[in-house]
Amino acid sequence: MQDIKQYVEANKQRMLDELFELLRCPSVSADPKYKDDVLKTADLVAKRLTESGADKVEVCQTAGYPIVYGEKIIDPAKPTVLVYGHYDVQPADPLELWHTPPFEPTVRDGKIYARGACDDKGQFYMHVKAFELMMQTNTLPCNIKFMIEGEEEVGSNNLGIYVKANKERLKADVVLISDTSMISMENPSLETGLRGLSYLEVEVVGPNRDLHSGVYGGAVANPATILAKMIASMHDENNHIAIPGFYNDVVELTDTEKKELNSAPYDEEEYKKDLGVDALWGEKGYSTFERTGTRPTLEVNGIWGGYIGEGAKTVLPSKANAKISMRLVPNQSSEKITQLFTDHFNKIAPPYVKVTVTPHHGGEPVVTPTDSIAYKAAQMAITESFGKAPIPTRGGGSIPIVALFEAELGIKTVLMGFGLDSDALHSPNEKYDIYNYYKGIETLPLFHKYFAELSK
Amino acid sequence: MQDIKQYVEANKQRMLDELFELLRCPSVSADPKYKDDVLKTADLVAKRLTESGADKVEVCQTAGYPIVYGEKIIDPAKPTVLVYGHYDVQPADPLELWHTPPFEPTVRDGKIYARGACDDKGQFYMHVKAFELMMQTNTLPCNIKFMIEGEEEVGSNNLGIYVKANKERLKADVVLISDTSMISMENPSLETGLRGLSYLEVEVVGPNRDLHSGVYGGAVANPATILAKMIASMHDENNHIAIPGFYNDVVELTDTEKKELNSAPYDEEEYKKDLGVDALWGEKGYSTFERTGTRPTLEVNGIWGGYIGEGAKTVLPSKANAKISMRLVPNQSSEKITQLFTDHFNKIAPPYVKVTVTPHHGGEPVVTPTDSIAYKAAQMAITESFGKAPIPTRGGGSIPIVALFEAELGIKTVLMGFGLDSDALHSPNEKYDIYNYYKGIETLPLFHKYFAELSK
Repeated sequence: MQDIKQYVEANKQRMLDELFELLRCPSVSADPKYKDDVLKTADLVAKRLTESGADKVEVCQTAGYPIVYGEKIIDPAKPTVLVYGHYDVQPADPLELWHTPPFEPTVRDGKIYARGACDDKGQFYMHVKAFELMMQTNTLPCNIKFMIEGEEEVGSNNLGIYVKANKERLKADVVLISDTSMISMENPSLETGLRGLSYLEVEVVGPNRDLHSGVYGGAVANPATILAKMIASMHDENNHIAIPGFYNDVVELTDTEKKELNSAPYDEEEYKKDLGVDALWGEKGYSTFERTGTRPTLEVNGIWGGYIGEGAKTVLPSKANAKISMRLVPNQSSEKITQLFTDHFNKIAPPYVKVTVTPHHGGEPVVTPTDSIAYKAAQMAITESFGKAPIPTRGGGSIPIVALFEAELGIKTVLMGFGLDSDALHSPNEKYDIYNYYKGIETLPLFHKYFAELSK
Repeated sequence: MQDIKQYVEANKQRMLDELFELLRCPSVSADPKYKDDVLKTADLVAKRLTESGADKVEVCQTAGYPIVYGEKIIDPAKPTVLVYGHYDVQPADPLELWHTPPFEPTVRDGKIYARGACDDKGQFYMHVKAFELMMQTNTLPCNIKFMIEGEEEVGSNNLGIYVKANKERLKADVVLISDTSMISMENPSLETGLRGLSYLEVEVVGPNRDLHSGVYGGAVANPATILAKMIASMHDENNHIAIPGFYNDVVELTDTEKKELNSAPYDEEEYKKDLGVDALWGEKGYSTFERTGTRPTLEVNGIWGGYIGEGAKTVLPSKANAKISMRLVPNQSSEKITQLFTDHFNKIAPPYVKVTVTPHHGGEPVVTPTDSIAYKAAQMAITESFGKAPIPTRGGGSIPIVALFEAELGIKTVLMGFGLDSDALHSPNEKYDIYNYYKGIETLPLFHKYFAELSK
């Protein structure tokens, strides 16, 4: 542990500068206008992997954005850890809400503010630097492979194809991912599950043109009103999702699991204060941890229709749209839920509008084992580094790759995240504590150490 | 009538060119970025009024956009007609739906396509040219005053102040307005009523920042979902507006009025075909004419919230907004309805969101007399010009000035519109038939002639 701390101390500034350079790249995978920036980011990641000591570094082309691969095989007989991360980021808008430019990392009271600071540049780069550390201090105890993709924020559509085509190359004993969060630095935790996702876009079309709301208002259906009614009908009075069959495959937690999940520290007043809300909302009969970690949800991610510019326009819009996503839990299937939603949405569409449902992307929910060598290694690493055993939690987010790995390569995953829920992932002013960044770089070598030892 | 036709024939091209020059000015009053263009348009209108023979032409400054005034007093003893119109236009977006640029007037099969072609540049300018005609042919039979404003599309907020301050100057026997439509050129009509308006904007705020829909989804209210539920609750299952007290002051039509209103030619299949809808929507128990002309409505003119850009963003938005307007009928009061909506919207807001209601503007509903000299003069003018007596109809639109005039100056209005409902007012590809434009220029002198005669 001392050598680790010494190495980090000696290379602190450079390790931060390198992350900042990465954060300055606006690698927004959702918006085509950033295409060149995303591609440049992939090259930079490859460059850094090589400098850190990786062999066979390659920017692997796909039908979409490339996947950066690199490896260090010290002994084929030793266990292999496959590190996964993503160099793409969420769009930065609404831009006007950022206190400092999203792609100009700025430090305020020990925190790095930038899009991707935590999700996932700040976190996957800890692995690159922890790897450098182990190489420089000759302490790499096992083989390591890196796979850093550029389409996680848009559904990892091409990753599956790549994984299928590179099973031999990606062979490993465990997948290690830092793209999740801890309860707090005082209460370190390990996520043992992730929700799946079904993301789609709906369009409701009424008249063939925008109409004068005076001349036609009252005699023609307003698509914005109809869309509102359709969305409103998606949750019942108990905030259960009203799509027939939606909950059919949901696995309820056992009382023990419930107890363990709810044993994690939680201060509702603090939670509400941080969000600035007077009351929480959610599915009746479930706690906040259960609602975000173990229950499926349906959220409107975006809605638009009619005149949204300055001032007033008395128009009856021709159409209205919404982006809607559903978070899924074991054993729901993304494909099945997408179909259920589509059928239901078409079924409830009234005769005076035409509706279209366009699926964007999806991902399957997962539960990671807590009895594996890898999970124990993670527990030991965190316990040594934080001086406290990690609490097992359920994450609300989705990392499609996890289910993909299990299905395609038969490898389980360990979710070793160092972020915080309050890091404003996907929001303006995303941040990552410099403390957490270094803490991760110090903790990860311990995971490799214990994983190698326990594998003997 | 022959002299009139001859004059129009001889000056056809110039009369069209002048209108085109006016249509090339993007005088969008709702959007501050067009400020200079709106001001330039006012100057152009003043220039044309002067050229056409008006005296005391003045661009009258207000707290907003100026009002262009001009007059020709041939004999104080003779009756005076006050012509009202507006030189401002609606925003042109959605721009991508225009087949030709909104501010580059283009003629296709006899129709002028341009924003403002019908509403109201094409229509108010008929009065300027009819006035020129009467001046040039020495046939102006009465005094005439022009008041062309630049804020009709944003609620004529400064017109009231101007009218109050200029009662003497605006003294007249009737107000003549061409800012409405006819059933068709084969079925000329005269509107005898207009709906009032209450336009407001609502904001629903949930969490203090956009949230990751995975990390928080399910535990925090989604403002877009809540706004949808609130909007959905505004109409009941019969499409009656569900705001308590909303209908209290509504005057139901008498059976005779109903019969007369519904006697106008109406082909539901044609109506649906023109709009491209399979079914109509509306308040149960009322016909299309009643729904658009005699019943109050509530329409969502615009709605937006969350991520509306390219691709997908898994965000739980911090807020959602909507522009909502209500069309009012006799004897509803715009102020009262705005208050009822505001109280109701605040009342139904759930505890986990904060809502704000911001009134934009309003206008009072009106019914114009059908037993006045002015109305008779309009009937006679149309009958002579179209060879057919006009059908009385109720307009669904709103022209706040009409109620204002009656209240402030005690003058009744005649609504002599030459547009068509299918002219796509407030929509992309707004048009005005060149035929209607010349027809109006030919018909208006007859109104003045008969009004002067009947006033003797």
